[in-house]
Amino acid sequence: MRAGIFYKKGDIRVEEVPDPKIIDPTDAIIRITYSCICGSDLWYYRGLSKHETGRIGHEMLGIVEEVGDEVKKLKVGDIVVAPFAWCDMSCPACKNGISSACWHGGLWGMNHTDGCQGEKARAPFADGCLFVIPKKTDKALMPALLTLSDVMCTGHHAAVSAGVSKEKTVAVIGDGAVGLCAVLASKRLGAKRIILMSRHQKRTDVGKKFGATDIISERGEKSVIKIKELTDGIGVDCILECVGTKSSWEMAFGMIRAGGKIGYVGVPHDVELPIPDMFRRNIGVNGGVAPAANYISELMPDILSGKIDPSPVFDLTIPLDKLPDGYKAMDEHKAIKVLVRP
Amino acid sequence: MRAGIFYKKGDIRVEEVPDPKIIDPTDAIIRITYSCICGSDLWYYRGLSKHETGRIGHEMLGIVEEVGDEVKKLKVGDIVVAPFAWCDMSCPACKNGISSACWHGGLWGMNHTDGCQGEKARAPFADGCLFVIPKKTDKALMPALLTLSDVMCTGHHAAVSAGVSKEKTVAVIGDGAVGLCAVLASKRLGAKRIILMSRHQKRTDVGKKFGATDIISERGEKSVIKIKELTDGIGVDCILECVGTKSSWEMAFGMIRAGGKIGYVGVPHDVELPIPDMFRRNIGVNGGVAPAANYISELMPDILSGKIDPSPVFDLTIPLDKLPDGYKAMDEHKAIKVLVRP
Repeated sequence: MRAGIFYKKGDIRVEEVPDPKIIDPTDAIIRITYSCICGSDLWYYRGLSKHETGRIGHEMLGIVEEVGDEVKKLKVGDIVVAPFAWCDMSCPACKNGISSACWHGGLWGMNHTDGCQGEKARAPFADGCLFVIPKKTDKALMPALLTLSDVMCTGHHAAVSAGVSKEKTVAVIGDGAVGLCAVLASKRLGAKRIILMSRHQKRTDVGKKFGATDIISERGEKSVIKIKELTDGIGVDCILECVGTKSSWEMAFGMIRAGGKIGYVGVPHDVELPIPDMFRRNIGVNGGVAPAANYISELMPDILSGKIDPSPVFDLTIPLDKLPDGYKAMDEHKAIKVLVRP
Repeated sequence: MRAGIFYKKGDIRVEEVPDPKIIDPTDAIIRITYSCICGSDLWYYRGLSKHETGRIGHEMLGIVEEVGDEVKKLKVGDIVVAPFAWCDMSCPACKNGISSACWHGGLWGMNHTDGCQGEKARAPFADGCLFVIPKKTDKALMPALLTLSDVMCTGHHAAVSAGVSKEKTVAVIGDGAVGLCAVLASKRLGAKRIILMSRHQKRTDVGKKFGATDIISERGEKSVIKIKELTDGIGVDCILECVGTKSSWEMAFGMIRAGGKIGYVGVPHDVELPIPDMFRRNIGVNGGVAPAANYISELMPDILSGKIDPSPVFDLTIPLDKLPDGYKAMDEHKAIKVLVRP
């Protein structure tokens, strides 16, 4: 079988690798039909975060090809989607809704587990963390369902962590696939007003389709002034921080009203939280690595029914062999998110 | 009239000062019948925070003696309790539930407003931030009602900020009056288990009366080990941080489970938040200066009905003239909280 292999900064190749085998009796083997490239994969591609040499990718949708002896619920032939953090869904962290901190779980493509950009993968704790898609589902919905692996659940986590609900005014920082899904999640949760920070028309078009009511193209202090103008000087109730840089967090604290909440899902890089300001104005900071496995069952029906359609985050589809071109396109901002067909 | 005057570190005196007068038409003059000394007053007394030379104290219960022309709801003779942060209750921050960040408010005893340790005080925005106690109320309830000025509302804010509810396991860091009220607030909100960190029997006695199910006398890393033992290695759902030091926050992050929330009300001193750990484990940090004015209407009925009685936090009562002795007693940990009778 073929799979994407990370070598070093800027160096991803598609190579022949051995087929995965059942190791633990709770494993399943998945034949991957849809995968994709994540903004967070770019941290490795750009040499900003470390990745072991080997398989990469953490989003997949596919067909169960084989199951271990202790797999009870899943059956060969089931169509499944996997959360980006695999987990057992039975430990205290999973039961408390934070499967991304599963006591026995991990990330695909790390510590010698299979990455998802490839033809097949071994899935640990298959009964726990693979979610079955009804067999009759229209194939056209598969890209949307694949977003449950990561970006739709991650955008939803930002919204939930920031307490988005009806009557709330929301600002979304980050116009990548996660930020755009955060707009869609906010709309789904009933937010009254959704302000997206973006200066790229391709992305603002998707943002508007997803429910953004306002677009702010300014950055830094100017964006804060603009938000204050839009909100009678008050600031917004909820910030969905989908970037993770020092400057995006400075914008977040500038835009948030007293008592507001920042829901964050961007991996923080060099971020320091201003606790005196947080204390004085009662700014809450909640979020982290999205527990996708805890959200998939809630969100999947809304994709199946057509209530939400996150698939427009994919604006480029490539075959697996072109994976290096997909990374290049995302690195150069030529694509929002790349769908990969093994 | 007489009032407590802050001069410098360790130097509080009771002196004759001019009676307050109505300045703005929204003012009222309060004849203070109950005041008290707060743990946060000790920061000034110990020279750790700055305070202007002048009146001090921010908790009071008293009788309306005079009202300005634009005061509509309050009447002369009303018995009232005041939140420690005065506010108009009509600005966006107050309407959003964060009266402690009122656009037009402030703190008693700051910027030339009256402190509450004295015989009288001028109250700005009297209609907004003075809360009427029914005239028929038993005098024995007045100390409990005075805690609505600060400690009971602040303990409640810690609990609300940490998401305390039924089935939650809570750890309270801090055994001062606020920490003890945080225990009582957690009990009121239905917490299943309430663990109080304390090694002082007088305080643990009050904590148990308020609903603490477990007492941990260990500190630092040992307290974290103890909490893990008590919770099957998981950690607690909610931390109520009522101290504000680096070491208390380190304990908080050690004790909290993945996905748990820290509700904090202790003024943070030299605290740095470990955002990588927060991100990895989805630890939420919420809280700040308690919006007492937004809580008083909710909590007062429970004191009037006897459902909660925070008055045991007062373990020493002094006349106003003995105010310096009251500060000394609290500074030397000889009293939990001192009730002052002007």
